[in-house]
Amino acid sequence: MSPPARCPRTVAIALIHHPVLGRDGRIITTAITNLDVHDIARSACTYGVQRVYLVHPVEAQRDLVTKITGHWTTGAGARRIPDRVDALSLVMPTPSLDDAITHLRADGPPPDLWTTAAAPHGDVVPYPDARTLLWQPGPPVLLLFGTGWGLPGSTLAAASVRLAPILGVTPWNHLSVRAACAISLDRLLG
Amino acid sequence: MSPPARCPRTVAIALIHHPVLGRDGRIITTAITNLDVHDIARSACTYGVQRVYLVHPVEAQRDLVTKITGHWTTGAGARRIPDRVDALSLVMPTPSLDDAITHLRADGPPPDLWTTAAAPHGDVVPYPDARTLLWQPGPPVLLLFGTGWGLPGSTLAAASVRLAPILGVTPWNHLSVRAACAISLDRLLG
Repeated sequence: MSPPARCPRTVAIALIHHPVLGRDGRIITTAITNLDVHDIARSACTYGVQRVYLVHPVEAQRDLVTKITGHWTTGAGARRIPDRVDALSLVMPTPSLDDAITHLRADGPPPDLWTTAAAPHGDVVPYPDARTLLWQPGPPVLLLFGTGWGLPGSTLAAASVRLAPILGVTPWNHLSVRAACAISLDRLLG
Repeated sequence: MSPPARCPRTVAIALIHHPVLGRDGRIITTAITNLDVHDIARSACTYGVQRVYLVHPVEAQRDLVTKITGHWTTGAGARRIPDRVDALSLVMPTPSLDDAITHLRADGPPPDLWTTAAAPHGDVVPYPDARTLLWQPGPPVLLLFGTGWGLPGSTLAAASVRLAPILGVTPWNHLSVRAACAISLDRLLG
């Protein structure tokens, strides 16, 4: 069996903990969730994503990410479940989205920002069209996922692509960020 | 916009904690994971799944599931995040897979058992073919997901459909059960 096709563009993920919306629509900062780190890294590794930025402005929370990834890439976790090494090696904590963009850009062109959201904001791009776009040569794509109640309007407004909400078959539309990320990667890169 | 088409068959999920494989290939019993309950219930609710059976032979672990679902369907959690009510209402703890089958069957035909696995076992059905099959009228389908290192051979052997492994674009193939469930539902029912 020939190896599956690889997307010609570099794809990275940023999981945003600030600024994100709270339940009441105000800007909040959420806490790092251990299983977000694992699940999103594992999904990213499966679909050939180059980097998973954990964006958090609080140093102690970034230190927590470093502690988690250290445990699973060089510590006892790596010896117990070696499969986690490749996944958790993709994770990098950054203080802000701008820092993630700067790191991903390196010496190349700035990445395109693609946002995900549970509700449509402005013009959204259906997944099949986004997939076609992604598989054409171009600058890196940074896929943004919001924790809490999602990305604020200012982040959505700055995106070059706003992905359409993932809709199931019911009006109920409250996937976890871990599930939404898995489905997005499967639709775009699988 | 017209409402999305609904699958003509009843679909339910069973998340199996025993019997499942351990790291060394022996049969083990895994512990209930809080975020499995939430994430799988939320994905199930999104895609119109009728029931999520949490299969665990230990009564104290089933009681934990009942405590979690109670908190989110009638307790303080339901008042704080009402969106969770519909999702967590789908969850039902059962001592064994047979009990889940009996409950799902009710007075109707026995459900078809469809298994998921990270590695191919025997003849597997690719997702597009499974989707075609699922959207034809028929008995209920019970989708089985294994925790730990997956479902044992005896469970896979008893299935009428063994779904093909979810493959990304790398040889690395270690999705979380939460991510695998989300992708499976999107591919089969989305």
